[in-house]
Order: sequence, then C-alpha cells, then structure tokens
Amino acid sequence: MLGYAFMGKAHSNAFKKIPYMTWPAPLRPRLVAIAGRNEEAVRNAAVRYGYERATTDWHDLVSDPTIGLFDNGGPNSLHAEPTILAAQAGKHVLCEKPLGRDADESYEIWKQVAATGVKHMCAFNYRFVPAVRLAREIIDAGELGVIRHFRGRYPQDWGDDPTLDTWRFHVAEAGSGALGDLGAHVLDLSRYLVGEIASVSALVKTFLPERQVDDAIEAAVEFEHGAVGTIESTRLALGRRNSFQWEINGSKGSLAFDMERLNELQVFRNGGRTRGFTTVLVSEADHPFWEFWWPPGHIIGWGDTFVNEIHHLLRAIADDSDVAPHGATFEDGYRAAEVCDAIVRSGAGGSREQLSYRTL
Amino acid sequence: MLGYAFMGKAHSNAFKKIPYMTWPAPLRPRLVAIAGRNEEAVRNAAVRYGYERATTDWHDLVSDPTIGLFDNGGPNSLHAEPTILAAQAGKHVLCEKPLGRDADESYEIWKQVAATGVKHMCAFNYRFVPAVRLAREIIDAGELGVIRHFRGRYPQDWGDDPTLDTWRFHVAEAGSGALGDLGAHVLDLSRYLVGEIASVSALVKTFLPERQVDDAIEAAVEFEHGAVGTIESTRLALGRRNSFQWEINGSKGSLAFDMERLNELQVFRNGGRTRGFTTVLVSEADHPFWEFWWPPGHIIGWGDTFVNEIHHLLRAIADDSDVAPHGATFEDGYRAAEVCDAIVRSGAGGSREQLSYRTL
Amino acid sequence: MLGYAFMGKAHSNAFKKIPYMTWPAPLRPRLVAIAGRNEEAVRNAAVRYGYERATTDWHDLVSDPTIGLFDNGGPNSLHAEPTILAAQAGKHVLCEKPLGRDADESYEIWKQVAATGVKHMCAFNYRFVPAVRLAREIIDAGELGVIRHFRGRYPQDWGDDPTLDTWRFHVAEAGSGALGDLGAHVLDLSRYLVGEIASVSALVKTFLPERQVDDAIEAAVEFEHGAVGTIESTRLALGRRNSFQWEINGSKGSLAFDMERLNELQVFRNGGRTRGFTTVLVSEADHPFWEFWWPPGHIIGWGDTFVNEIHHLLRAIADDSDVAPHGATFEDGYRAAEVCDAIVRSGAGGSREQLSYRTL
Amino acid sequence: MLGYAFMGKAHSNAFKKIPYMTWPAPLRPRLVAIAGRNEEAVRNAAVRYGYERATTDWHDLVSDPTIGLFDNGGPNSLHAEPTILAAQAGKHVLCEKPLGRDADESYEIWKQVAATGVKHMCAFNYRFVPAVRLAREIIDAGELGVIRHFRGRYPQDWGDDPTLDTWRFHVAEAGSGALGDLGAHVLDLSRYLVGEIASVSALVKTFLPERQVDDAIEAAVEFEHGAVGTIESTRLALGRRNSFQWEINGSKGSLAFDMERLNELQVFRNGGRTRGFTTVLVSEADHPFWEFWWPPGHIIGWGDTFVNEIHHLLRAIADDSDVAPHGATFEDGYRAAEVCDAIVRSGAGGSREQLSYRTL
Repeated sequence: MLGYAFMGKAHSNAFKKIPYMTWPAPLRPRLVAIAGRNEEAVRNAAVRYGYERATTDWHDLVSDPTIGLFDNGGPNSLHAEPTILAAQAGKHVLCEKPLGRDADESYEIWKQVAATGVKHMCAFNYRFVPAVRLAREIIDAGELGVIRHFRGRYPQDWGDDPTLDTWRFHVAEAGSGALGDLGAHVLDLSRYLVGEIASVSALVKTFLPERQVDDAIEAAVEFEHGAVGTIESTRLALGRRNSFQWEINGSKGSLAFDMERLNELQVFRNGGRTRGFTTVLVSEADHPFWEFWWPPGHIIGWGDTFVNEIHHLLRAIADDSDVAPHGATFEDGYRAAEVCDAIVRSGAGGSREQLSYRTL
Repeated sequence: MLGYAFMGKAHSNAFKKIPYMTWPAPLRPRLVAIAGRNEEAVRNAAVRYGYERATTDWHDLVSDPTIGLFDNGGPNSLHAEPTILAAQAGKHVLCEKPLGRDADESYEIWKQVAATGVKHMCAFNYRFVPAVRLAREIIDAGELGVIRHFRGRYPQDWGDDPTLDTWRFHVAEAGSGALGDLGAHVLDLSRYLVGEIASVSALVKTFLPERQVDDAIEAAVEFEHGAVGTIESTRLALGRRNSFQWEINGSKGSLAFDMERLNELQVFRNGGRTRGFTTVLVSEADHPFWEFWWPPGHIIGWGDTFVNEIHHLLRAIADDSDVAPHGATFEDGYRAAEVCDAIVRSGAGGSREQLSYRTL
Repeated sequence: MLGYAFMGKAHSNAFKKIPYMTWPAPLRPRLVAIAGRNEEAVRNAAVRYGYERATTDWHDLVSDPTIGLFDNGGPNSLHAEPTILAAQAGKHVLCEKPLGRDADESYEIWKQVAATGVKHMCAFNYRFVPAVRLAREIIDAGELGVIRHFRGRYPQDWGDDPTLDTWRFHVAEAGSGALGDLGAHVLDLSRYLVGEIASVSALVKTFLPERQVDDAIEAAVEFEHGAVGTIESTRLALGRRNSFQWEINGSKGSLAFDMERLNELQVFRNGGRTRGFTTVLVSEADHPFWEFWWPPGHIIGWGDTFVNEIHHLLRAIADDSDVAPHGATFEDGYRAAEVCDAIVRSGAGGSREQLSYRTL
Repeated sequence: MLGYAFMGKAHSNAFKKIPYMTWPAPLRPRLVAIAGRNEEAVRNAAVRYGYERATTDWHDLVSDPTIGLFDNGGPNSLHAEPTILAAQAGKHVLCEKPLGRDADESYEIWKQVAATGVKHMCAFNYRFVPAVRLAREIIDAGELGVIRHFRGRYPQDWGDDPTLDTWRFHVAEAGSGALGDLGAHVLDLSRYLVGEIASVSALVKTFLPERQVDDAIEAAVEFEHGAVGTIESTRLALGRRNSFQWEINGSKGSLAFDMERLNELQVFRNGGRTRGFTTVLVSEADHPFWEFWWPPGHIIGWGDTFVNEIHHLLRAIADDSDVAPHGATFEDGYRAAEVCDAIVRSGAGGSREQLSYRTL
C-alpha cells in the first residue's frame, strides 16, 4: 500500500474486511508493507492497519518479491512511476483516480502497464456502489431504451477555505482541482453507464485568488451514440458535502441517484396510472454485491463500496478474469483523463472540443 | 385576451380570482373580449370564462377603446404584431413568453412598445412563485454572499410522442422548441436571481427525426459577475412532468428549488452542528404573496402563481409603479431571447458565445 | 353561506371557480347571501366574494326561498340548528366538519336532515384531494389486497401560543380541540379508505394549563375487518404546519401520503428487483378530478380541493345522484363523531372502547 | 461469541474493525472462541471471522478463563442462562436485545449479573447511530424545551411469508414477535430520548393464522414527565424493509429520523422566515462517533453502528467507566421488557396499563 491517509484508510479497511465479508473470499490479502512520506505517520499506520512493515521509500514495495498487488493511494504525482515500476516487477496494480495528472501521463501509465500483462484497475470505486451496478444492469438489459440524457454533478464544499492547504490544491501534485478529483468520477460513471463522450463545451473556473487549481468545471457534453447532457464538479457548493448526483433519461425510462443516499436508486418506467419514480432501496438479496452484506433495508456505507471494488480485483486476479467491463481498467483511467484535457482546452479556448482516444 | 387554450385558461382564472383573493384588489378586471382562431372554441371560451364577447379577429381587441389591458396568450408567431398594435392603441400589454421567436423580433416588440409608454410585462410567471420571490429577497439581503453557481434544468417529457402535433413543434409558429418554451424560463429566473449572462457554451439537439424544432438544449454558462453554471431544458426526460429545478450556491449559503414541489424552498446557511438544507414550506404570513392565500401549510398550486403575477401588473397599472424589478418587462423578454439566440449560435458553431445586449 | 372567515373564503372561492374550471359545470352557483356575526365583516365579505346581500342573522338564509343550497361554515356550535332548519326549509345542506360537537348532536343533525330528503354533505374536503381519491380507487380495485395497517397523524403547531384566542379553544363553541378539528379528518379518511373502526384505545391530552380543549389525542385503533393502527392529532407539533400524513399497508401493497405534498401519492407494489415506493405525481389526464385542472405536473393547491368537493355536491344535486360513497354524508359525519366520543371515553377511563353505531 | 448468524456476523465485524477504525482503540479484541448449535456452521464461522476455536457447547466459553467478554448473540431463549453464568464466571457481558423473553426473565438476568459487578450492556445498537446520539445531545442541551410528543414506528415486511420458519416465530425461543424484536428497539430509544414510560394502551395482533407470535403491536403511550405519543412495530408492512422512524416534538423544536436514511437527522428550530426542518447529514468532524469514520458526507452503514456500540463497551471495560447513560445496561433491557409485558397485558385485557419498575 502506498499512502496512509484518506485512501490508505479506505483501502486498508477493504483488505481487512474482504476475508470475512465476501465469503469465501477469492483471495485472503496479506498486508505486507505500507509506504508513505512521513516516517512516524507511516509507522503508526502500519501498526494501526496491521501491515507487517512500514517504509518511507516506495521502491521498497516495488522490489519486494513477496508483494503480489501494489495499491497506489498516493497523491496524483506519485501515480505514474511507482505504478509502472510495480507492474514491470510483475505485481498487479490498483491505482487511485485520476490515473495520471493529464492524458499524456495517463496514457503512458496505461501503455507501460498493459505491456506487462498484469491486472490493472483504476480505483473508480463508485462503479461498485450497488445502486450504480444495478443501474448498469438495468441499462444493459435495454430497460431504458435509447439513452438521451445524462446529467451528472459532483459538488462538495470543503474547498471554501482559503487557509486550507493540501496537495490537492497544488498543480504539481494534483494536476487539476475539482476536475480530476470529482469531475473524473462523473466522467467515469457517464462512460460506464452511457458510453463514450464525443465532445465537450466547457468552462473551468477558479474562484479563490490564491488557488493554483480549478475550483469548478461546467460542461455540456455529447456522447458518441447521440445522448447529450451536462457535467459539473465543484468544491465550492456550500451545503453539498458529497453530493454526487446523476440522472439518465432514455426512450423507455429514467434513473436518478444521489451519493449522499447511496443505497437508493430512483427508477422510472411507465406504470400506467401509478407511474412515477420508484425509490428502490438497493439492499435485496438479488441486488448487486448484496450477498456480502446484511438483510434487506440494513444499508451499507461509503466505506463498504471499497470492499465491493477490491473484491472485484481480487476475483480477477484469482480467476485470471477480466477487470473490465465492471472494473475501470487503466484504459478507462486514460479515457477519463482525455476528456479532462478536452475540458481544459475547451475552457481555455472557448470551442467545443471533439474527443479522440489513443489506442495501444 | 388573445388565446383560449392553456394560457387562456390560466390567465382568465387569474383575472377572475384577483378581485376576491387579493383584497382589496388594485383593479377589478372587466373581461371585455376574447379572441382566437376557431370560432366555436372562442365562443365557448367566452361563455366559460365570462368574457362579454368573442372574436376570431384580434384586431377587434386592438380597436376596442374600452379595453385597457391587452393580454397576449397566443402562439409565439402572434406575439409581435398584436402586442405592438395594442400598445400603440394605448393599451397596457401582457405577453406570454417567449416574447418573440428570436432576439430580433423580441427587440422590435420591446422597442415599439416601450415607445408608447404603456405598462408592459412578459409573462414569466415563475417569478411569482412565493418560494422564488423569497429566494430573491434572501439574495437581495446578501444572505448568500457572492453567488458562485447556478444550475437550472427544466425537463418535461410530453414531447416523447412522434404522433403529437401542436404549434409548439412548428418552427414558424414557435420559433424554437424546448429552448423558447422551457429554456426561456430557466434563463429568466437565472437573470432574476443571479444576474446577466455573459457567455454560453451550448448544444442544441433534436432527437425525433420529423421534428422541426429542438427537443433539448444543454449549456455551460458564465454570469457577468463571475458565477458559472449549467442550464438545460428538454421535452424528452421520461418521468419528469414539470421538473423545473434550480440550485444556487453562494459564498455564504445555498438555495434549491423544484417546481413540482413549488411551495418548498431549500435553504442552506451555516448552522453549527445542525447545519444542512432547511426545507422551508413557503406558506407563512410573512412570506411573499401569502397575504392572498391560506393559513400556513395550506399550499397553493401552479395556477395560483398567475394570480400573484397578474396582480403585480394590475398594481403597476393602478399605481403607475414600475413593473420591474419583480415583473419581467419586455426588456427582460428581449434579453432572454438574446441568450436563446446565443445558445442556437453556440450549438451550431461550437464556440462559446459572448453576449451583448442592445439598448433602446 | 354561513361564515366569512377561513372556511367562508375557501368555500366561496370554490363556488366562484366551479362555473369555469369544471366545464360544463353541473350547476352555476348564484351567491345569494352570506351571514356572519360581525356586521361590518360580513358586509365586506359580501362585497369581496360577490354575495348579493349580507346578514347578521342566519335565519334570513333559512327563510329565503331563492336559496337552494345552505353552506354552513360557521363555528361548530352553529352547525346543528341552522343546518337542520335549512334542510327542513327544503334546502340542500353542506356542513363543515365536525358535524356536531359530539355524537349525540351529530346524530340529531343527521336524523333531522335525513328525514327531509335533501342532499347533505359533511365537508370532509380531503376526500377530494386527487391523490386520496386515487388511493381509494386503488384500494377498491383490490390492488392492496387485505388491509392490515392504517397509521394516520395530523399534527399542526399553531396551538403553541398561550395568548391566542379563537372559538376553536372554547369548549362551548368547538366541542373539542385537536380531536374534532384535526382528528376528525384522520378518522374520516381512515373510514373512507380502510373501513369502519371497531375499537379505540386512546389518550387525550391538554398541555397548556389555561386551555379548555384537548391539544392532542393518541390512539391505537382496530378496524372491523381486522386491520390495526394508530391515529394521532395535535396542534403542538412544532414545525408541522399542516402535516396530515397517513400510510396504509395491505397484503399486496402499500400507500403513503402527506398533505403538505398533496399532489403526490406513494405507492408500493411488488416490482421485482426494482420494487420500492413510487412517487406518483397525481396530475395526469387519467387521474381523479384532473379533467378540471392543468397539464401533467402543474400541481394544484389546497384551496383547489374545495372545487373538487363542492362540484361533487352540485353534481349530486343536479343529477339527483348519491353523495355517498365519495362524498361524506351526515351519516359519515355522525360516525366520525361516534369515534371521537369513544376516544374521549377511552382517554378518561383508560379502557379500550368498542364502537357501536346508531342507525336511523 | 455465542451465535454465528445475523448478529454473529454483525458483532464479529465490529470486533475486527474496532482495532483500526477507532484509533487508538480502548482494547484490541482477541477472538478466542465462538459457539453455536450446528457444528459445521460454527466451525466455518470460526474460520471466516478468525475465532481461535469453535464449539457447540456454550459452557466451553463460560469456563474458559482466557475469555474476558462474553457476547451473547444467540436466540432469546439462550439469553438468560449463558449470560448469567458468564457473568458469574467474572466475564463482562454483552447480550442482544430483548434481554429476556419477558420482564421476569429480564429482571432475573439483570439481578444476577448486577450482583457480579461485571460490565453489562444490552445490545440496543441504535443508540449508537450518530444521528441518534446527536439527537440525545440536542435534547440534553435543552434545545427542544419540554418534550410533548414521541411517535415511533418500526415496520418491516419480511414476516409476510407463511412458509418462512425461524426461531423468531417460535414463542418458546423468541418470547414474542414484532414486539420483542422491533418494538423493543422503539421502546428503548423512546426511553433514551424522552424518558420513562408511564402507561400504555395497546393492541397486539397476529395476522397469519399459523403464527405463534405477534405480527404487530400498536400503542398509545404516556411518559412520566407528561409527553404522549404512539409506538408501533410490525413485520407485515409491505415495502418497509427496515423503516424505524421516530419523531419528537418539544416546546422549542422537533426532531425526526428514519433508519433507512440513518445518516440524516431532521431538526426543526425556529428560524424566522426560513424556518423548517433542516436535513442534517450527520457526518461532520464534530458529530458523534465521527472521529472513527470518513470525511463529511461519506456516509456510514448499518453495520458500522456496531463498531460505535462495542467500542463504547470496550471503553467502559478499559477505563472502568459506566456503560450508562449512552449504553443500555441490563436495567435498561429489563425496563424495556417491563413495557413489553404491559403492552401484552393491555392488548389482552383492553385497559391502559400503568407501569411500575422493579429495582434491585
């Protein structure tokens, strides 16, 4: 594990829960080592989460032959090199989003890692919210018909503090602001649920004068098969703590979702006189991932989505099965970055940007 | 009254309720005459709503010296000439939105009517929803601080029927589709609540092959003082019947609103440990327009907003007071049309369109 | 019309709207006269609502042969005598709820009026909320199966003011407090939707020391066919302005409703993987009463329910059709009062009270 | 640990998460042994959750001197003897609710265990929902003023299956049905938030003919300091999966809560023109238990409440601090049972039952 802070905690919790919550687990993780910048902090993290050792040098993880999976939860500037070297050392790799700080870096990570043949997954954990997977299954079954609209917004408000300092505000470490942090989640789910993005007409805005990165992005988007919509992310929407909401309208039905009520999916299909949006409490025995959890109505939390996510990767490793389509591969990570770059170009130049995606 | 269908019913109902619901009413309307295309239908409407006479020629209204207020609820193609002639005949004028079919026509209406000195109001009735007025008062009082975001969407779904025919689908009569019909409402409220729009980056989409007008528009927008956001309207969002929702985020607080629950305003201001969005049921004695209505909690309906709206115009006529700022003048009608045109240009050309507004 | 205050306004508004909103109207009301205690107030009301004359003596209404319908919106102590005399004078009668101040008085009103053969309706207007009628139709169609539970609560909070004085706090005029004012509505809808009440186990509570009438009632109830549930009303639930909520659970489905969102009905029926409560926006062309109103999604208000209600009575008069089952007859008014009395007895004596209902 | 099914999983998960989620943990649990009826199942559970050994005889746990905490998650009929013997063997004890199958058994457990001096906690986990604790803190601070109303309902619907068989339907093992299973939760929270219950007027209902235990209870309740309200639980409310909702109204404010959205607390306090219920997303750094979890807005799940709960007990053991008032002691378990018995008596006899509580 590289990183011991927010994502370090979320991933470590998942590694520790998988052996008994997903029963029988595909693999039982051994927590070999954790790396981080601050020596005391990383040593504490090792004790706390049960890693066998701690190091301030991530190269130690790369060179350790007993490590089979390299989990990169470090800042964005530390995604490329460690992840590539770990893969080249034969380890499967899991890398937090955004994959790289821009499309070029993301493409390079994908290209180098794909060449090694290891399993790779970009940690878009929201694909593993049961309601999101259920949405995907509804769409795959054709129950929405042709999709016409996607509108996704991911507002938070913690950025509204000029005194706050974190690597997420430094362009060298983060690459971008609300765009890569939150917008990438929206872009990934839009691709997962609707399809490839064809063009973006966007604005990129920094409100706080001293801030290096964007505070907000706004975009009108077209998808390859014809759907249109809006995508937005911001860290300055007061009162919205983690309000990732999206809605999809198709020719036969609609879906709506709110991450602050992540156990619920709103479903509209024609229902005669009693048509309307149905609030599905996604917690039934026949709902995605629910064999891992509790009786119906006993909801899961945000942290639990990482159990679903990393279980998926361990299953792919154990069975040598594909990470795609439900897991985001590094190609998915790259494609989201390509759209992010187009948003930046459109924001700067004022033109609608057509997307084209590189292949290997 | 010109028009006896949807808007004819809504306006006539308001004329009939004002004398006793808004007590004492500024003026007690006399329903002199109603005009419409179909002779039998307009005669029935006169009987139904109590107009003294019916006519199939709107010129009869213009030339009738006993008529003091000309209310234009006809199709968009009938907005310009009758409204201008009525004003030139010395009548005050109320015209349904959109003012004209494009910015040029809207500008012409504004210019010609303003020159006559009569009172003019463009019927953006949603300014007269109590929750919307309360929002405006909260903003005017500075309680949101500097506004950073506006996101407005107006989805309906009745357009999802290829067999349906109405003047609203004919470009000659309507000018545009979801843009002028629904998008204009979003634009007007964004201007009323946030300020002038500075640029738009937009998509205009027609889904149904035989349709002459747009089915949906999507836009990223900038406001003159720096706020950014998204604006959307569509007639093809299944399950959304009249779902005009908007949200505003400022540096001190946020607001959110949904027309399907038009009696409620969501308000966020910092509240210590119990901060969150408060659902204000806008029905208190000290809430806007509520002196006309019922005890707290006894909600009003969509039709009642027209009582609030036309009362405002009658008050302006009776007192010779300004229609602005709470009523939309024809200048407001023109400015919304200017933004609509920019959306069309941006949709066609792919560039962000900077707005500039004509003056008299 | 007897009464010019809250109910006088609500009923007068309905009389004035019916001729054009419900087209063609069964009858076009002529507003002959209005009676009330305060001479200036009743004269103002006559001008305001368009009654031909005003009087401070309700006997004038009874003796006026041109009056065909006597509408009693006075305080509860004025329900019995004027209503009975009006009926005996051959007028159809509409009486606000509760019918009488207790079961004996209510029974007497019913008995005397029924003997005259006029149409009689007790103004339980909530039966005429479109969502409530839709609920009834769903239940009548057997879509809920056997009903097992009814839980209804009607909390308001305006009673939380020791300085407030109104006839509603005086036992001689009102008979009871939250019980007859709000609880009667819950009881009536429970009877309309579920069936006759068989027993009550209740508490009756007065919180404010100087108050003559109850502030709140709480009851566990049994219905004749075996359903059980709770019924509550209070005027001291801070923040609940008009929060009449009820939920029904049956062996095949469930319904839930909230008067503060009176255009919505929550419907649960098994729906496979996407089961859940559906929020039906009751505003479709095929929904009850909706032929009177607006396009889908354009919601109605509380005041509009009186249009639906009084239209029903006028239809019964015009066609000589039955007020029941959708309109509450005076028998329904009496039966609600019988349950109210049982609640009082149970509250005082501490025993479960079995209901028995008198017949004519 | 006694029990390996639903509660066994929930408690084991908590034991495993506490060492790293609550940092530094008061104690780091060693999972010594697990007991259960089915030999293969209990052996599998030991492997799954990491217990050092499995046994089909719970006496093995009692006699093992290395065990310091005995956690009883077995059926209700196995609460008394193992818990008492474990306490007498000097082990701290945690026992699932309801404590015993009736008041007598519960009193006996309390009396015997209290005599040993060990820490005892009855596993009313809902006290450890952050929103519930926040509610308690709001009440303790006097922010609601004098409490007038409590209405609590706990409907589920899994009981609507005549073919289903579980110990929860057998009177010998369960003692009661919805009453002890769900009603006990409502009673406990009402006592925790409002105060002692003074009387109950109740109905007890069994709908399915073959069922030994109650399917539903309905009660009107009085609290010792004067508040009144309703309490309900049922396993036959279709569409309600785990819908434990409660609302409290006081003289200064109100609270409302829904377990299916357990991260949210609705708070009403007077707020001038923008008064209303505020939806507090209970996930802030200054909210109860939140130092264990994630950044604001990243919600927790039902299973996480057990981490909060058992951490509380471990802290009490580590610091020799009191389990009360935030943890439910066996006295609390007994008192809930005393109310359950009164509900049964009231249901059978039809009278309001006054409560009196035994002391040691």
